[in-house]
Amino acid sequence: MRIGVLTSGGDCPGLNAVIRSVVHRGTDVHGDEIVGIEDGFLGLIEGRTRPVSHDDVTGLLTLGGTILGSARVKREKIQWAVENARTLAGNIGIDALITIGGEGTLAAARLFSDAGLPVVAVPKTIDNDIDATDVTFGFDTAVHVATEAIDRLKTTAESHQRVMVVELMGRHTGWITLTAGIAGGAHGILIPEKPFDIEALARMIEERFRRGKKFAIIAVAEGAHPVPGTLRFEHGSLDQYGHQTFGGIGNRLARELEDLLGKEARPVILGHTQRGGTPTARDRVLATRFGWHAVEAVHKGAFGHFTALRGLEVELVPIADAVTRLKTVPDERWSECDAVL
Amino acid sequence: MRIGVLTSGGDCPGLNAVIRSVVHRGTDVHGDEIVGIEDGFLGLIEGRTRPVSHDDVTGLLTLGGTILGSARVKREKIQWAVENARTLAGNIGIDALITIGGEGTLAAARLFSDAGLPVVAVPKTIDNDIDATDVTFGFDTAVHVATEAIDRLKTTAESHQRVMVVELMGRHTGWITLTAGIAGGAHGILIPEKPFDIEALARMIEERFRRGKKFAIIAVAEGAHPVPGTLRFEHGSLDQYGHQTFGGIGNRLARELEDLLGKEARPVILGHTQRGGTPTARDRVLATRFGWHAVEAVHKGAFGHFTALRGLEVELVPIADAVTRLKTVPDERWSECDAVL
Amino acid sequence: MRIGVLTSGGDCPGLNAVIRSVVHRGTDVHGDEIVGIEDGFLGLIEGRTRPVSHDDVTGLLTLGGTILGSARVKREKIQWAVENARTLAGNIGIDALITIGGEGTLAAARLFSDAGLPVVAVPKTIDNDIDATDVTFGFDTAVHVATEAIDRLKTTAESHQRVMVVELMGRHTGWITLTAGIAGGAHGILIPEKPFDIEALARMIEERFRRGKKFAIIAVAEGAHPVPGTLRFEHGSLDQYGHQTFGGIGNRLARELEDLLGKEARPVILGHTQRGGTPTARDRVLATRFGWHAVEAVHKGAFGHFTALRGLEVELVPIADAVTRLKTVPDERWSECDAVL
Amino acid sequence: MRIGVLTSGGDCPGLNAVIRSVVHRGTDVHGDEIVGIEDGFLGLIEGRTRPVSHDDVTGLLTLGGTILGSARVKREKIQWAVENARTLAGNIGIDALITIGGEGTLAAARLFSDAGLPVVAVPKTIDNDIDATDVTFGFDTAVHVATEAIDRLKTTAESHQRVMVVELMGRHTGWITLTAGIAGGAHGILIPEKPFDIEALARMIEERFRRGKKFAIIAVAEGAHPVPGTLRFEHGSLDQYGHQTFGGIGNRLARELEDLLGKEARPVILGHTQRGGTPTARDRVLATRFGWHAVEAVHKGAFGHFTALRGLEVELVPIADAVTRLKTVPDERWSECDAVL
Repeated sequence: MRIGVLTSGGDCPGLNAVIRSVVHRGTDVHGDEIVGIEDGFLGLIEGRTRPVSHDDVTGLLTLGGTILGSARVKREKIQWAVENARTLAGNIGIDALITIGGEGTLAAARLFSDAGLPVVAVPKTIDNDIDATDVTFGFDTAVHVATEAIDRLKTTAESHQRVMVVELMGRHTGWITLTAGIAGGAHGILIPEKPFDIEALARMIEERFRRGKKFAIIAVAEGAHPVPGTLRFEHGSLDQYGHQTFGGIGNRLARELEDLLGKEARPVILGHTQRGGTPTARDRVLATRFGWHAVEAVHKGAFGHFTALRGLEVELVPIADAVTRLKTVPDERWSECDAVL
Repeated sequence: MRIGVLTSGGDCPGLNAVIRSVVHRGTDVHGDEIVGIEDGFLGLIEGRTRPVSHDDVTGLLTLGGTILGSARVKREKIQWAVENARTLAGNIGIDALITIGGEGTLAAARLFSDAGLPVVAVPKTIDNDIDATDVTFGFDTAVHVATEAIDRLKTTAESHQRVMVVELMGRHTGWITLTAGIAGGAHGILIPEKPFDIEALARMIEERFRRGKKFAIIAVAEGAHPVPGTLRFEHGSLDQYGHQTFGGIGNRLARELEDLLGKEARPVILGHTQRGGTPTARDRVLATRFGWHAVEAVHKGAFGHFTALRGLEVELVPIADAVTRLKTVPDERWSECDAVL
Repeated sequence: MRIGVLTSGGDCPGLNAVIRSVVHRGTDVHGDEIVGIEDGFLGLIEGRTRPVSHDDVTGLLTLGGTILGSARVKREKIQWAVENARTLAGNIGIDALITIGGEGTLAAARLFSDAGLPVVAVPKTIDNDIDATDVTFGFDTAVHVATEAIDRLKTTAESHQRVMVVELMGRHTGWITLTAGIAGGAHGILIPEKPFDIEALARMIEERFRRGKKFAIIAVAEGAHPVPGTLRFEHGSLDQYGHQTFGGIGNRLARELEDLLGKEARPVILGHTQRGGTPTARDRVLATRFGWHAVEAVHKGAFGHFTALRGLEVELVPIADAVTRLKTVPDERWSECDAVL
Repeated sequence: MRIGVLTSGGDCPGLNAVIRSVVHRGTDVHGDEIVGIEDGFLGLIEGRTRPVSHDDVTGLLTLGGTILGSARVKREKIQWAVENARTLAGNIGIDALITIGGEGTLAAARLFSDAGLPVVAVPKTIDNDIDATDVTFGFDTAVHVATEAIDRLKTTAESHQRVMVVELMGRHTGWITLTAGIAGGAHGILIPEKPFDIEALARMIEERFRRGKKFAIIAVAEGAHPVPGTLRFEHGSLDQYGHQTFGGIGNRLARELEDLLGKEARPVILGHTQRGGTPTARDRVLATRFGWHAVEAVHKGAFGHFTALRGLEVELVPIADAVTRLKTVPDERWSECDAVL
């Protein structure tokens, strides 16, 4: 078969590992031809493809990023592509399509599938917020990078008797912050699912100081927000370029805590270092398994499904199940933070 | 309550993180006193304990090893201790015991529990071979270390057009080797569950050379063994000190492949570097969760159970379920290696 | 002898390693008593000390930060302390003092030395801007952290065809940025020593795009500044809290480049992750050697000197030589960037 | 100019970084053509070359190994090549040759240079035993890997109250073992330059135990050897395959110490992991600088020289100076170990 593969959405460690796995399994076992589609759905629309052979994927396992590129496509253009799905597939001569991407890509994959294009999807998000799979690749790497940073910040905070506020990725869900916060031994964890009370946070830190500890690390998700009315500084706004780092939650929180505690507080915004670079061993394995199962799904004709990890097994789940709701941090999991911090 | 805690068995990244979590949750939330028992069951027998406070566990999250120590105790001594379980517990004044250890420790925990000592167990093994939990802490760290090593060996193998044989831990199960082998992109993976045929392995490598690749990495578990009669060198034996590294499978395999292929083959035995040092973020979180749930189990009176990860949740499982069989690599999982290597 | 030791100034990986080395060499070989002075010169003034024994420094080699703490002391207070140097030393009963700190600490050490206090100084700065020593500990670690970050950002930049601007430490000198920029393969390097022309930078990036490269990494020192009049956005100012991350050079540069190039440009501000955490092997060794030589200097009576690496040897250099001028990146070194980027 | 470049000898992190730097500097600034010669001098002899362009070296900075390959050539073949140096150079059409390699390569480079071939050499050895340069690239990476391993082994040794013997690279010199031993906080360091007395070593460890420490780490260079007559086990010999890991010094030492101390002792042989994989930041920079200066040397006509780091500067030194003697660990440096361990 001729199987198209595309990557779409933000960078995520493991994308290349999926591509490599698709090529290995497809070409070596099934004799498939793998057609790499450049820059996500844009390449599908514009017919920009190239064959991807076994040699082309040498060294990809450890390489972050995606050799196929990824570009944003406007909603209306996707809509147009869906309406012309069969023609576009015909133009590049593919029998099936494997899409690797996040929520938006899954939604698009579903539309293409409904439009008659044989699609298998591989989910991707460093945020780990797709409900139908236990975990996505990229997440473990993001947590690894964030945890290493917290490890490093701790000694500085302690030596200088400071509060350090570390802003981590997660606009809508707190998985990275919760996980790296626990792994790094943060003393406060603020996530979008649980609006925070800055006064209560300050009191907790003060209580910690009273017990003789001289520093504190606060991990905050970029999407965390205060209980309305409790952060005294006016809300910062995105600038004309949409840059979030100007006046983001990390910066504002550090300023506020410095004011409330009368102690030095410093923000650190990890930013894009969390979503690039070589994947952890765990992410490499998960990406490789997802690629393997995606090819098998194609050959079984399990279209309209995506690969999901459930417990120890990779299963095929209808794409529809993925896009219904965001996986947020549940109360029971949140309660496990209590007194382990 | 006064809760005793002990660590037993081989070193495993995350032991200290469990102790820290038990102390944080126990003392801060429940007002427990945590009694550290030194050198595993030996300390229980000899009454060697020390209180472990919140301050005592500062910095433990990132520290490998166990501050409580761990020592081997002979089977008959354990038997004697079980018969005197209540007295021993009385001597050190504990109301409940949390044991952190592997298969042997779980078996002992069960005996103590049956003898009337209120025990909750936390499973530990870098080998990941306990069937009742999806995964154990320590495993991810071992895989991480092994994968980094394979990453480094690859460039040397390639530059010198060599075969590299990397011997990884796993006497009875192949989880570390399978996982690190896939994560590192090994070209051959040999595990105890699947006796290997050295001639077939050599042919596979030769086929690889024919396709223009000039090197190969073979990941072999220390407990991997050939199909009987297929390794021509006589089987090495443990020396008087029981040291396995003299003539272990990695060394023998490299010699044999060099002979069969007429190419340089070099063994690397990773050894104990796989089981020490700072835990990965994932292992820290799992260890922390296990400690948290162990304390909760004590307060719920869920004795005779151990903490297990199932999917995303930590559950309490009867210890009896843990000790019935080893979790080996199943056929379906093994087949996922096919052509992803 | 009773030797006091203090750490002063910002956090720097290797401070603890120096303390450990001083204790090992002093107590084990010379039978010294080591007196730890808390929070830098503040502890000297306030008489806050504690004995530091061999056991107290166990594990310090790998630990970032300083177990003695570090606090800022106002200039007039230092002046007062200098005038009362002998009394203060008498109060805590020390025969000699080893100071570990940066430029300011060296200047203070010189004053104390001139005032008759027997002082040996160990230089410390992650910025590597002390002229009299080839290199200082902490620098290699900062470069290591910065390089790892650039490595991670590269794949994201490439996948998304973006410009990434990485702001690194260095207010007055460009050593970290130059070194990590070369090590990470940055495509532009901006340092305080060389005012940059934003238009020329943009043209260089455009030329790169024309050659088919689709991304660029720009490493910029926090103290880099444009040729006057060439950055069109008005100069940001420090806010009331003195936080530099609001509107720092990294953010402004990204905005400007986005505007000039019509391409996505994203800033990443590494911040304090560069100055904390476990030291690299090289920094551990240098810190250990400095501690060793500082003790020897005390016993040789080489007061008023500091430890300096010159080539392969640690030498003792008059403190006066250290404080005369900043070591900036010389022209010949800067020219080595040409076309290796 | 047409400049040939070849890599020769064992793998060493930074080889690719030199090649990249030569290409960047040569093609972008001087308009040179860079001719990659495959498999070291073998490729020169057999006329196997390929052009290496700017695009060909993309991504090489972080990649261990050498894209040009490296193969051993017999001495007589080198001799033949030297005699036919001009013809061989003419065959592949090069005006100058840059060789990247260790002691043997430098010796060969000198012969070719004397025979009239314009050669500039870049020194390479992870062992750091070339006297005419302060340090060589690859060394810092080897030390980094070895130090990380010692860090990991420490917690295991401590938890199990064991002696761990870590065998590191270094047949003739102890630089890696000395440096990683100090960086890792080893308690004993054995190097080829200083024959060791096993009884004295055992007494030192016993003394350590008496002081309450319950474990010890011994770093031993593969070429370390006992004072004649002091190791009771008969000396192991290389087997028919020349494999050194069978019965090497690490294994024998662990056995002996176990016997002498009556304590568990375990060997770990790091082996080839020390010489492969991505270079540290420091090695990337040094390799890049060497490549840059090698090209400049060619254009200055400074043939018969090699690049050397002296203090902070890269200088050009006559190759003859490099090959006269091995840089061994001098007494003063060795004495710095005293009581810092």
